[in-house]
Amino acid sequence: MYRISKPRGLFVGRFQPFHLGHLATIKFALSHIEELVVVIGSAQKSHEIRNPFTAGERIQMIKDSLNEDSEVDLKRILLIPIADVDVHSLWTHQVDNFVPSYEVVFTNDMFTRLLFRERGMKVVQPMLIQREELSATEVRSRMAKGGDWKKLVSPQTIKIVEHINGIERIKTIFAKVSATNY
Amino acid sequence: MYRISKPRGLFVGRFQPFHLGHLATIKFALSHIEELVVVIGSAQKSHEIRNPFTAGERIQMIKDSLNEDSEVDLKRILLIPIADVDVHSLWTHQVDNFVPSYEVVFTNDMFTRLLFRERGMKVVQPMLIQREELSATEVRSRMAKGGDWKKLVSPQTIKIVEHINGIERIKTIFAKVSATNY
Amino acid sequence: MYRISKPRGLFVGRFQPFHLGHLATIKFALSHIEELVVVIGSAQKSHEIRNPFTAGERIQMIKDSLNEDSEVDLKRILLIPIADVDVHSLWTHQVDNFVPSYEVVFTNDMFTRLLFRERGMKVVQPMLIQREELSATEVRSRMAKGGDWKKLVSPQTIKIVEHINGIERIKTIFAKVSATNY
Amino acid sequence: MYRISKPRGLFVGRFQPFHLGHLATIKFALSHIEELVVVIGSAQKSHEIRNPFTAGERIQMIKDSLNEDSEVDLKRILLIPIADVDVHSLWTHQVDNFVPSYEVVFTNDMFTRLLFRERGMKVVQPMLIQREELSATEVRSRMAKGGDWKKLVSPQTIKIVEHINGIERIKTIFAKVSATNY
Amino acid sequence: MYRISKPRGLFVGRFQPFHLGHLATIKFALSHIEELVVVIGSAQKSHEIRNPFTAGERIQMIKDSLNEDSEVDLKRILLIPIADVDVHSLWTHQVDNFVPSYEVVFTNDMFTRLLFRERGMKVVQPMLIQREELSATEVRSRMAKGGDWKKLVSPQTIKIVEHINGIERIKTIFAKVSATNY
Amino acid sequence: MYRISKPRGLFVGRFQPFHLGHLATIKFALSHIEELVVVIGSAQKSHEIRNPFTAGERIQMIKDSLNEDSEVDLKRILLIPIADVDVHSLWTHQVDNFVPSYEVVFTNDMFTRLLFRERGMKVVQPMLIQREELSATEVRSRMAKGGDWKKLVSPQTIKIVEHINGIERIKTIFAKVSATNY
Repeated sequence: MYRISKPRGLFVGRFQPFHLGHLATIKFALSHIEELVVVIGSAQKSHEIRNPFTAGERIQMIKDSLNEDSEVDLKRILLIPIADVDVHSLWTHQVDNFVPSYEVVFTNDMFTRLLFRERGMKVVQPMLIQREELSATEVRSRMAKGGDWKKLVSPQTIKIVEHINGIERIKTIFAKVSATNY
Repeated sequence: MYRISKPRGLFVGRFQPFHLGHLATIKFALSHIEELVVVIGSAQKSHEIRNPFTAGERIQMIKDSLNEDSEVDLKRILLIPIADVDVHSLWTHQVDNFVPSYEVVFTNDMFTRLLFRERGMKVVQPMLIQREELSATEVRSRMAKGGDWKKLVSPQTIKIVEHINGIERIKTIFAKVSATNY
Repeated sequence: MYRISKPRGLFVGRFQPFHLGHLATIKFALSHIEELVVVIGSAQKSHEIRNPFTAGERIQMIKDSLNEDSEVDLKRILLIPIADVDVHSLWTHQVDNFVPSYEVVFTNDMFTRLLFRERGMKVVQPMLIQREELSATEVRSRMAKGGDWKKLVSPQTIKIVEHINGIERIKTIFAKVSATNY
Repeated sequence: MYRISKPRGLFVGRFQPFHLGHLATIKFALSHIEELVVVIGSAQKSHEIRNPFTAGERIQMIKDSLNEDSEVDLKRILLIPIADVDVHSLWTHQVDNFVPSYEVVFTNDMFTRLLFRERGMKVVQPMLIQREELSATEVRSRMAKGGDWKKLVSPQTIKIVEHINGIERIKTIFAKVSATNY
Repeated sequence: MYRISKPRGLFVGRFQPFHLGHLATIKFALSHIEELVVVIGSAQKSHEIRNPFTAGERIQMIKDSLNEDSEVDLKRILLIPIADVDVHSLWTHQVDNFVPSYEVVFTNDMFTRLLFRERGMKVVQPMLIQREELSATEVRSRMAKGGDWKKLVSPQTIKIVEHINGIERIKTIFAKVSATNY
Repeated sequence: MYRISKPRGLFVGRFQPFHLGHLATIKFALSHIEELVVVIGSAQKSHEIRNPFTAGERIQMIKDSLNEDSEVDLKRILLIPIADVDVHSLWTHQVDNFVPSYEVVFTNDMFTRLLFRERGMKVVQPMLIQREELSATEVRSRMAKGGDWKKLVSPQTIKIVEHINGIERIKTIFAKVSATNY
């Protein structure tokens, strides 16, 4: 497209849920490019152990968190949900259909990196802060087991999780998966 | 969700392409609700006679147009592409999965109205300005036949259509459909 | 399967809506076989000009109508909704997956006949009564245009159509299609 | 719909295969509501370790078993196969499309309960008899390993399993999965 | 891929049915490149007015015709069926997944040309011989109406069409479509 | 079809990647039938731990390997990629749509055997040579772990794997799966 002066980047994730590490990556990305498309991946999934929240719930977590953050300019951000495609090798092309043109991809997922690199796209791996704690897997695990998940997410995410009875949902899904394994 | 003080609304359309009538509707909607989710429908379609542009191209048209409009506050807007589902009666539920909770739907399409009303949702029909001219069907027709389509859309939309060789694309699609009919 | 003494048959239709001709065919089929599987085709479709009613609405029309008919023994009947498959040549095999084994197919649709006959299945074409009037196309047309559709269907079908505001739905769909054509 | 005097309920299961616990639940449900829709879930699946039988085979097991049971009135029952949808949060809405309206859901699956409860539906958990033995997982396991599965199912189910060489099918599927794991 | 000395090309068509014009194009293409991939498009379709034959039937027509043609070296040819994808803009990428790498595309379809050219691929439009007669549309029309279709196809295609009762199939499909239109 | 003098057979596999055992099976099959259709199964899959290569990459491995093998007559072989269908019991029928008619199936996969035998097809289990080593699972494992995979495949397969950076791709996929399991 006619983006020359304003380079655009993608930040690809599933945001199950949106946590403080994601927020830091968004700020990192905004310091390098003019406009950031946050791709909410596996958008069709919810109510699963690795994907408990709907795309709409995740978008509201991100939107509300960014809205209250004085360091982030929402006008420079697009939030775009993208469903998986059955065929892995088509996925990056599906992304191209759903977002404006972009020059760089920010992601810490090595598989996403592989797919974009095989196409010759530039991929940047953002520095991770508090890697042990600040992962969505850790947040979901604490939610299911009664640990302190609230310190890993924004106040806005907490509000939404509570409003939708998210903890009960996650506990039910974890219990179901345990039952199936026996 | 916990939206009580900030009512949210949907504006559902296909935006093939985004034109000045759509822009007026967005302003109309923003005068009634706090936050507006612009649903880009039939998001998976492109390169068809009624759907020439990809979701990404349409999102860029809308984003760039709103960006340059001093009357619109982009922080109050979400642009969400949603693919069709094979089953009509599931479509509004699919919308629910992809967007934050909402209280009202703005649409001029009578079929979209029917589907939301059968579920008991509140639907508002925005006043149409210059109805004859300001329809996407009219814009596409002028693009294909060499008419003056530029006065019906924003300068940003013009730039994007030109950048992607959109007129050539539409002329090819129109020619193909004519050939098939004979 | 182990059906030897009790031959089973299929009656394939879309039942948009269920009318008195369908009822007569069911009675005709029951006089030839022991058990009848009524296949509600295009089960995933609704809110379309040729398919206004959901599978659930159609099943209720058939179930309630047969329930009140003293000549029909409901214990000899199964009502099975089957969605279309994208691939025509797989459709009869999809039917095989969803119904118990059967020996004969009753249908007046020449395309359904072709598909089953190419597989070597026995197909019976039931005698049609009042062919002109007793077609679902005619019923839908009268519903849309204010004609007398009620004499073509059972009292139970009338009740259901009225309960779901079916006439308004059909009129909206017809109006939409007309608008698109111009 | 116009069901006021005759409340209708759903019994949701996969019936892989139909066993005596399912039969007891159907009788339990029929003592509480007027009409029961037995939803045969994951209808598109078969020839898998958790889903060895086709929907048609399962329907025949249920139909034949109920047919021979003097305590069950088949006229009060509908057997409706429903395929999975890719999107979990759409599944209960898909059910709504395929069955007549209902007031209550009977299920012992906690995930199904979660999905219906998030929509505000009334869900009843039937009392389980002989919980250890009377599970479909146990029946399939005995089928694969040469245990006594016949005492857990009806004589009609036994006949159908034998007619389709179901034990050989299950043994092949179990052997394949074991081979893949090593 | 490591194709440097042996350039490879695609010939994209639907081959409904394979006719003498297609045969001429294959010879034309083989005179320009080393290896030719014949892409049988819309592979999942059959039993439709524009797509009467299955992919397997079409492949047999092509294979048998080329086999008997002394000018064609079958070792230089691959026949690859490719199903449509729901999303037009993904289709050429789907092709890339199903065929070895290629340098040039031969096609007379202007829409296929548009899709490959938007990606920057080289597209060659083969010279058409006897354009009026030698089109698959014309062949199908003659088949349905009793015209002389046999002079437009190879003897091998004739044999296959007769073996599968193809003329009866096409006549049934044409009759059905006519009936639906009234 | 009209194949009487020339019996045709299928060889069904996934060829992830094509190895010397596959090559031996092709020669074995060609000694029994006139024409062989090599079905490349799970054609839509790639970039997965059990399916790293695209259908196009696999086809090129097979084509180039057979091309250089003086014992194999390429004119007697068709290479046909076939995607999975969601419904297991439809898969063999999907195969029927995509290939010319056949009389016998060659496969060592017990599940594929089960599916074809339930339909009454003749299935032949080719003798396996060096069973321990010559399995695609073993080849992929060696690729991921730095073992000697090259002696298990043809020189042509080696060239293609190296050209597409296949070893790096497999290592990334293996690393990702390990990471997900923790």
